[in-house]
Amino acid sequence: MNEHGMLVVVSGFSGAGKGTLMKALLNRYNNYALSISATTRAPRAGEVDGKEYFFVTEEHFKNMIEKEELIEYAQYVNHSYGTPKEYVLNQMKMGKDVILEIEIQGALKVKERFPEAILLFVMPPNAQELKRRLIGRGTESMEVINARLRRAAEEAQGMEAYDYILINDEIDTCVEEMHLMIQVQHKRASNNMAFLSQIREELKNI
Amino acid sequence: MNEHGMLVVVSGFSGAGKGTLMKALLNRYNNYALSISATTRAPRAGEVDGKEYFFVTEEHFKNMIEKEELIEYAQYVNHSYGTPKEYVLNQMKMGKDVILEIEIQGALKVKERFPEAILLFVMPPNAQELKRRLIGRGTESMEVINARLRRAAEEAQGMEAYDYILINDEIDTCVEEMHLMIQVQHKRASNNMAFLSQIREELKNI
Repeated sequence: MNEHGMLVVVSGFSGAGKGTLMKALLNRYNNYALSISATTRAPRAGEVDGKEYFFVTEEHFKNMIEKEELIEYAQYVNHSYGTPKEYVLNQMKMGKDVILEIEIQGALKVKERFPEAILLFVMPPNAQELKRRLIGRGTESMEVINARLRRAAEEAQGMEAYDYILINDEIDTCVEEMHLMIQVQHKRASNNMAFLSQIREELKNI
Repeated sequence: MNEHGMLVVVSGFSGAGKGTLMKALLNRYNNYALSISATTRAPRAGEVDGKEYFFVTEEHFKNMIEKEELIEYAQYVNHSYGTPKEYVLNQMKMGKDVILEIEIQGALKVKERFPEAILLFVMPPNAQELKRRLIGRGTESMEVINARLRRAAEEAQGMEAYDYILINDEIDTCVEEMHLMIQVQHKRASNNMAFLSQIREELKNI
């Protein structure tokens, strides 16, 4: 079966638990690599350049766009975010399933360019739980939380464009489900054209 | 998440082990129902009307076509095969994932009519193994076996149209893989439109 990695795009409302989910997935399985985005926004407390993000200037970001070094880029709350191409393609060649944690605008651009990418949307079991988690995080004012909830309502318009919906109710179950969703895609006929050609040749000459 | 069953189409070369696979799947899990095809071919030794197939006359079969009682029908080695509609739709409404074991021509017709159906193609790990299994079965002459292998080479042309490739090397592993492939599809965004609408409404009114 196919040996190159898959491209997996993960989006979801803030507060849906994407961060925790990614960490748990990468801890539990060694077939994944997390793409690191470039961004023009300032680091939050504790964020390290080259780990959570590559923190770059507006000028540097424009330069990356011009040199076509980004798979996709998008604007979100006055800042630019983009996915550097080289790292992603290298990891896929090495057989890693590469995960891009990006916003919906970027996700749809990736799907256009890589139709075989799978798009996952992470959701809380219901809207009240989302609000509860955002408040529980304790890092944002109620004003910011309300802005995020309004943003979530907008983002919800794009959910239908995703391939799969991943409900993050209990983290361990959710990690396992996400892993299975991705591993099943390796068996897609469109990801196994070389194997199919080989069987066809064998049958002709049997 | 969604509560109605999925439509699953299973095809594959004779000798790939579809029959054994279906039996094992239905024994192990209780969320599946196997569609029973109508056919104009004569029963083989041991086959029971209403179990393996509904054995019908050419005239009865034509009548079912006229009354639009078949989801799909196709001609294969001088006989007609078709899928009675009512049973399939009823089982899906009851939450069962309904499996149609049909030929490639019929499979493609089902996909046209039910785009959300998933098409699985069962294969042996390689062509030699297919030949070995057909001979090992001991029910057919070498002439028939060679005809089946030629037919397999032809069918191989259509494999790319399927969603997933299921390699039947070891039966227990294959059953498990098939079950996961199908269960993952329940999480497709397109199968959860009602849930997505509900979350969207909740977010508006939070």
